[in-house]
Amino acid sequence: MAEEIMINERIKNQILRSLASGSKTFWEIVNRQDGTLKELYQTLNKLIKDNIIKRDGEKFYLNNQTSLKFYPDPRCEHCRGGIEIKGEYQKIFETYKNIVKNRPLPSIEYDQGFISAEDAMRRAIFMYERGDIENKAVFILGDDDLVSIAIGLLGVSRKITVLEIDKRLTDFINDVSKEYNLNIKTITHDVLDSFPKKEMNKYDTFLTDPVETLEGFILFTYRCMQALKKRNSAGYFGLTHIEANLEKWYHIQKFILSTGMVITDIIRDFSYYPEDENQWVENYNHYLINKKLKIGIPNTNWFRSSFFRVEAYDKIKLKKHPRLKSTYKLYVDDEAWCTVENKNWK
Amino acid sequence: MAEEIMINERIKNQILRSLASGSKTFWEIVNRQDGTLKELYQTLNKLIKDNIIKRDGEKFYLNNQTSLKFYPDPRCEHCRGGIEIKGEYQKIFETYKNIVKNRPLPSIEYDQGFISAEDAMRRAIFMYERGDIENKAVFILGDDDLVSIAIGLLGVSRKITVLEIDKRLTDFINDVSKEYNLNIKTITHDVLDSFPKKEMNKYDTFLTDPVETLEGFILFTYRCMQALKKRNSAGYFGLTHIEANLEKWYHIQKFILSTGMVITDIIRDFSYYPEDENQWVENYNHYLINKKLKIGIPNTNWFRSSFFRVEAYDKIKLKKHPRLKSTYKLYVDDEAWCTVENKNWK
Repeated sequence: MAEEIMINERIKNQILRSLASGSKTFWEIVNRQDGTLKELYQTLNKLIKDNIIKRDGEKFYLNNQTSLKFYPDPRCEHCRGGIEIKGEYQKIFETYKNIVKNRPLPSIEYDQGFISAEDAMRRAIFMYERGDIENKAVFILGDDDLVSIAIGLLGVSRKITVLEIDKRLTDFINDVSKEYNLNIKTITHDVLDSFPKKEMNKYDTFLTDPVETLEGFILFTYRCMQALKKRNSAGYFGLTHIEANLEKWYHIQKFILSTGMVITDIIRDFSYYPEDENQWVENYNHYLINKKLKIGIPNTNWFRSSFFRVEAYDKIKLKKHPRLKSTYKLYVDDEAWCTVENKNWK
Repeated sequence: MAEEIMINERIKNQILRSLASGSKTFWEIVNRQDGTLKELYQTLNKLIKDNIIKRDGEKFYLNNQTSLKFYPDPRCEHCRGGIEIKGEYQKIFETYKNIVKNRPLPSIEYDQGFISAEDAMRRAIFMYERGDIENKAVFILGDDDLVSIAIGLLGVSRKITVLEIDKRLTDFINDVSKEYNLNIKTITHDVLDSFPKKEMNKYDTFLTDPVETLEGFILFTYRCMQALKKRNSAGYFGLTHIEANLEKWYHIQKFILSTGMVITDIIRDFSYYPEDENQWVENYNHYLINKKLKIGIPNTNWFRSSFFRVEAYDKIKLKKHPRLKSTYKLYVDDEAWCTVENKNWK
């Protein structure tokens, strides 16, 4: 029986992108993609058979000039651990910073708080680097971080949808999307309500920055997985150590694995929540930590999260999710020491 | 009932280290430690009660001058995602580079291949940053990477033990340890043999760079967990995408969680295996990938791995491990496309 040819779309995109900047040896190609040697071999062979790639001795090259938009390697030159915003990314970042200057401020009603513009841009670039937004349908649940706009500005996604409870945000994203022609669709929707049927199993990639109660966290990622369609779909989310101890991390990871998704990346302190821009000084009077220790207003950005990437190694298996009705339980647990309890939560 | 005071030794060390360079606000302390606000609060309160730390308004400081050896924040200033070797680390790194110049070359009999000196140093510094080697007993299973020496040179561990099959390596480490007074203990031992009773449950931290068959990988990490003693113990290991597909990652992660350990960090491409220094050009004739695709000798470093950190959120639970006898099965599976099969493997 002939060897079954498995084509991994993500790896295919990573190969094409790498060759778009000129011919490469096999080893240079390996270095810029995420598959095993076996997967790479199969994908490369298929691309050669389909005449998309040609070979001249040790060099592989694109058969036709590509119309593919591609960006340079964003890995940090100093430590390789993170993402550096440089070159072409820098120009996009300038536009992004200009846009988010007029963003809505965080609402305590939805326990909001956004990451810095720089870290939002880094999230988008990291997702690009992994091959998860190029030609992909991207689903974002809750976007006070406005990463949808950063992804939109990269201009390589097939589709971007934001599901968000806060009309101030969906309005803002719609306006920006229209002005910059980003083609982002928004849906004003509460995560506690059932997932919109029309969006089910329609997306390749999700992004969310969930609340950090265990029930809330699982609800957010569950909803996101409802949006995904198949094998090799990927997801991204932030999780802190500040309001989530390792036991909570454990249960979250158990849940992730139970769906057939694997954790491929956890980058510590990837995203900082800037004090100045969030303008939430007033909140500090209400935090439990400040009531206990009276430690005043921060003189540094300290709230930060790890950035997770997960990928479906097989079909996603979701059990029925128990209905969660309480907004209070969504936002508050024993570790929520820097959350402002809101009178509207029930 | 009075609130139970939980002291986390790792967080305690991170606090003391942060204050060793001068007084700090609460928010500056949070920023340099890994616990929740609740854990930090409890640990800080205990240190104040024990008169180790004092407070003056918003600043916390050490009550007595510390004899604690402490190093600066090694996080990369450009992207925060990885480790930068700078300042005091740079001096240690120079010594380290000098030492490893005369290292034993990789033996294909044990499927060896070492990471670059720079990346070995980065591993040691990252483990230090996380609070896992300061005053800790460190257990290393297999050390052709010679990270034991990098950790030894930092000079903050209570104990370092290397379990290693290759006598050339244990001899080399012993000589260096004696010359530089690093106090590293080595045990020449085959991972297929039962774990030495005397070393069971004696360590706080493990490090290993396992083979990448599923059975082999689990055996290596299982042995390492046998060395660990309790809650909050931590472990580190490398895992590639190159010889391990996501299904294998999935089963590895299932195993990790089944022991009660949580994955806290996965840093992609943290460690590169330098072609020149490993001097393994000859091997390329034997790799399956080269037989299939005839792609010659690499013109770049391409073999690399993600670096994992895991931590026990509770007691470690290990089921009895089935005995694995075959060296062949330890080293070879369907994905080992750049492994040289050895005639001694059975």
